[in-house]
Amino acid sequence: MDAHELGYFTEATSAEVVAGRNKNAESDRLREVMEVITRKLHEAIKEIEPTQEEWFEAIMFLTRTGHMCDDWRQEFILLSDVLGVSMLVDAVNSRRPTGASENTVLGPFHVGDAPEYQMGHNICLDQKGDDMVVRGTVRDVDGNPLEGVKIDVWQANDEGFYDVQQKGIQPDFNLRGVFRTGADGTYWFRAVRPKHYSIPADGPVGDLLRRLGRHPFRPAHLHYIVSKDGYDELTTHIFDPDDEYLHSDAVFGVKQSLIAEFVRVEEPERAKAVGFDGPYWDVEFDFVLAPKAAKAA
Amino acid sequence: MDAHELGYFTEATSAEVVAGRNKNAESDRLREVMEVITRKLHEAIKEIEPTQEEWFEAIMFLTRTGHMCDDWRQEFILLSDVLGVSMLVDAVNSRRPTGASENTVLGPFHVGDAPEYQMGHNICLDQKGDDMVVRGTVRDVDGNPLEGVKIDVWQANDEGFYDVQQKGIQPDFNLRGVFRTGADGTYWFRAVRPKHYSIPADGPVGDLLRRLGRHPFRPAHLHYIVSKDGYDELTTHIFDPDDEYLHSDAVFGVKQSLIAEFVRVEEPERAKAVGFDGPYWDVEFDFVLAPKAAKAA
Repeated sequence: MDAHELGYFTEATSAEVVAGRNKNAESDRLREVMEVITRKLHEAIKEIEPTQEEWFEAIMFLTRTGHMCDDWRQEFILLSDVLGVSMLVDAVNSRRPTGASENTVLGPFHVGDAPEYQMGHNICLDQKGDDMVVRGTVRDVDGNPLEGVKIDVWQANDEGFYDVQQKGIQPDFNLRGVFRTGADGTYWFRAVRPKHYSIPADGPVGDLLRRLGRHPFRPAHLHYIVSKDGYDELTTHIFDPDDEYLHSDAVFGVKQSLIAEFVRVEEPERAKAVGFDGPYWDVEFDFVLAPKAAKAA
Repeated sequence: MDAHELGYFTEATSAEVVAGRNKNAESDRLREVMEVITRKLHEAIKEIEPTQEEWFEAIMFLTRTGHMCDDWRQEFILLSDVLGVSMLVDAVNSRRPTGASENTVLGPFHVGDAPEYQMGHNICLDQKGDDMVVRGTVRDVDGNPLEGVKIDVWQANDEGFYDVQQKGIQPDFNLRGVFRTGADGTYWFRAVRPKHYSIPADGPVGDLLRRLGRHPFRPAHLHYIVSKDGYDELTTHIFDPDDEYLHSDAVFGVKQSLIAEFVRVEEPERAKAVGFDGPYWDVEFDFVLAPKAAKAA
């Protein structure tokens, strides 16, 4: 049916009438996307039946969210994060064969030019926090160790801030580094145990969380991008199982398979062997990369 | 199930996990609204399966839309208008018994303090355009004429602009006025035949319309708010049936029942009787007000 046959807008035909106007869209994809957006938006309105005042409140919320965005703050991404949209978009783009490591959100704090270090290097440049060793093996889905895998890691410090959030307070590139697996597929580096932190809560998204009775915290985690030619790039976190916010991550990034173990090592010999003077946390976490072509449909 | 029982976020449980966090929302209504918004948003993502690049394009579109908003421009309302959301919100809030006049969108150009005139007054203060008489009767749903009904009318001029869009060019309160029906329920006033016009198309919403192959025009119309104590306030338009955009109003405001007739009157005696020197357009349009309590569920 064309727009004319459908007739004028009515409550019953609203979404079809609106989407029917897009016949001459610049691409099929744009027309399809707008058809779904229009249909779901109209379904939501019909189910919610907002008053004019509620509709206007939504308009003003979106307006405040837009006004909060600048070169340093992206409040719409934050909104996407706290509504689980960012994680869902990640999920639909990261379906992998069983056994392969799972993705989670990239987050806003990755930098592209972190220094590459020799295995074992301590990426904590200011000696603040509890010493930690992170180590593991990267394998393919058949269990073969993978050599030369690029491991790009970054994390918040002992107070819950990334270096880029504390320019001049933390050293540049604090708690970031790139490592490569050896012939046996293993990697290891030294850092400090990360802490949970709050997403920016001083804008409209923070206001929404408060009105919903939700907190703004992310449980402690380390970020990884694990990559090798011919394999599906893995963007993920590993999480601290003891964090009080593990079950209520403000951005829904936690997956069961990404929860690590943090084991306290007290033995002086073991500490000495990894270059620490006292007790430290030992975290062992392995990754499995899916071949590039093997993405599930 | 509480958030813990549902477990961590997965593609399958995404909307339930997110909405499950809102147990302590400040009101039941906010929790219900957010549940629907979250569910429909996640349904849309699952159906669209946006790439990361498409998701980011949507984020940037919303950001540009927010940045376009200021004290004089409300780009999110414009977005709501062109997606049929404003009309749908109007529809769910304006269900009336059969026979009562239908609502349509208020639009952004109403002013609250237009002057009240005697019947027959010409609201066109600058004599530009084709003379027009508008007249009719206001009745209740049983057909009884209603006395003392307030008729608040406003319209664009012969070039498609409202007075508030052309301060200093049009006289203040040009093409606006308030009238009251007499004992027989009738009203009449003089004005000029309105023209179609473009909604603001120099922002992200205009860009979207172009990408969708849609034009930004609204067909020629007159605005009314018709009100009397004890009756459901009627906010509506009447439309010019000959307008080329009648079937493709950019904001979906047209309803079949709101299309008027514009009859050319050539007889000098009739023109003289209404105070015009030459031919004019005669528009007769009646309204039926629903009693306040009679809104359909």
